[in-house]
Amino acid sequence: MRNRGYSERMARLIQALNRLPGIGERSAERILFHLLKAPLEESTHLADLLKQVRGEARFCKTCHNFSDAEFCRICEDPTREGAVLCVVEDPKDVISIEKTGAFNGRYHVLLGTLSPLEGVGPEDLQIGNLLKRVKSEKIEEVILATNPNTEGEATALYLAEALKPWGVKVTRLASGIPVGSAIEFMDPATLQRSLAGRQQFG
Amino acid sequence: MRNRGYSERMARLIQALNRLPGIGERSAERILFHLLKAPLEESTHLADLLKQVRGEARFCKTCHNFSDAEFCRICEDPTREGAVLCVVEDPKDVISIEKTGAFNGRYHVLLGTLSPLEGVGPEDLQIGNLLKRVKSEKIEEVILATNPNTEGEATALYLAEALKPWGVKVTRLASGIPVGSAIEFMDPATLQRSLAGRQQFG
Repeated sequence: MRNRGYSERMARLIQALNRLPGIGERSAERILFHLLKAPLEESTHLADLLKQVRGEARFCKTCHNFSDAEFCRICEDPTREGAVLCVVEDPKDVISIEKTGAFNGRYHVLLGTLSPLEGVGPEDLQIGNLLKRVKSEKIEEVILATNPNTEGEATALYLAEALKPWGVKVTRLASGIPVGSAIEFMDPATLQRSLAGRQQFG
Repeated sequence: MRNRGYSERMARLIQALNRLPGIGERSAERILFHLLKAPLEESTHLADLLKQVRGEARFCKTCHNFSDAEFCRICEDPTREGAVLCVVEDPKDVISIEKTGAFNGRYHVLLGTLSPLEGVGPEDLQIGNLLKRVKSEKIEEVILATNPNTEGEATALYLAEALKPWGVKVTRLASGIPVGSAIEFMDPATLQRSLAGRQQFG
């Protein structure tokens, strides 16, 4: 039975919030009460932003990252190094790498990974466009930053092969023990990678 | 430095989401990406509900629960028992009690607790209205359902005293060991309460 303490629409708002990732029913209720007690402007501001951001969202025509214009800010930024391209699976990976502040090249977002089991082939990803960019933009290095899991590895292998004819330098993000973690907590596959990828020290 | 992977407005949406209870920056980012990938309608629907619910929110003129009309659904419901009034601190307590399905009377929301240290006196709460209701609605029992903490107890004691002249039955929610918990985990105050409130058994 419906909780009589809520109006029809409050119940629908709880449902809508509950559909968002990481928000359970209790969190949705807490958010509802927060907004009911907060000034009207807080809800209005949030509602307007939701509509605007989603309404203007599109994919950058160059790199396929989310953008609010035809080309994204990174592609449009003349201070970014044009010769290095970092290939990622998803727009959220761009955000994570940008947070490091350690990369000043440009991106190319595949919008997925190869997955034969789910029927995702090279033509379903932004791979053709990647090869075109490598040719037209005088790219010197392509960093394959797909995830170190089955699909990400398969996609990286496929790309490395596809890029061979272009004579471009192809690199892959290092896999290994995360900073702050410990050997005893690592799975064998990660340890194996960290051994294989060991580097000259001192 | 601002993350260049976001547009200006995306960054503002993340901030606005981040202001909601229980939503950290990472959750806000996950919600943003969820909405960017979901159909446009999901954002529109959520935005519309946020505006509507907050726009129409007011306090029920009788019980001071949140309502979308002059009087709330519980107060307007003729099947609810009119002679029993459950006094709570906050609208969210109404929701919690409604969830039990064990109460069929009506509510009175104080919208706070007495707190001399923070300058909250009886006149700042919906206490005058409570006394008026007890008089005019032929209330037979008032259940004091304020929280079993310092402010809630003080408020309950004050109300019990204020209700004495009206000759109405005044009860208080039982305090004790939560169902599913164990004696060994209880603090002395709770155990003391559960002893003092022990009931005939079998």
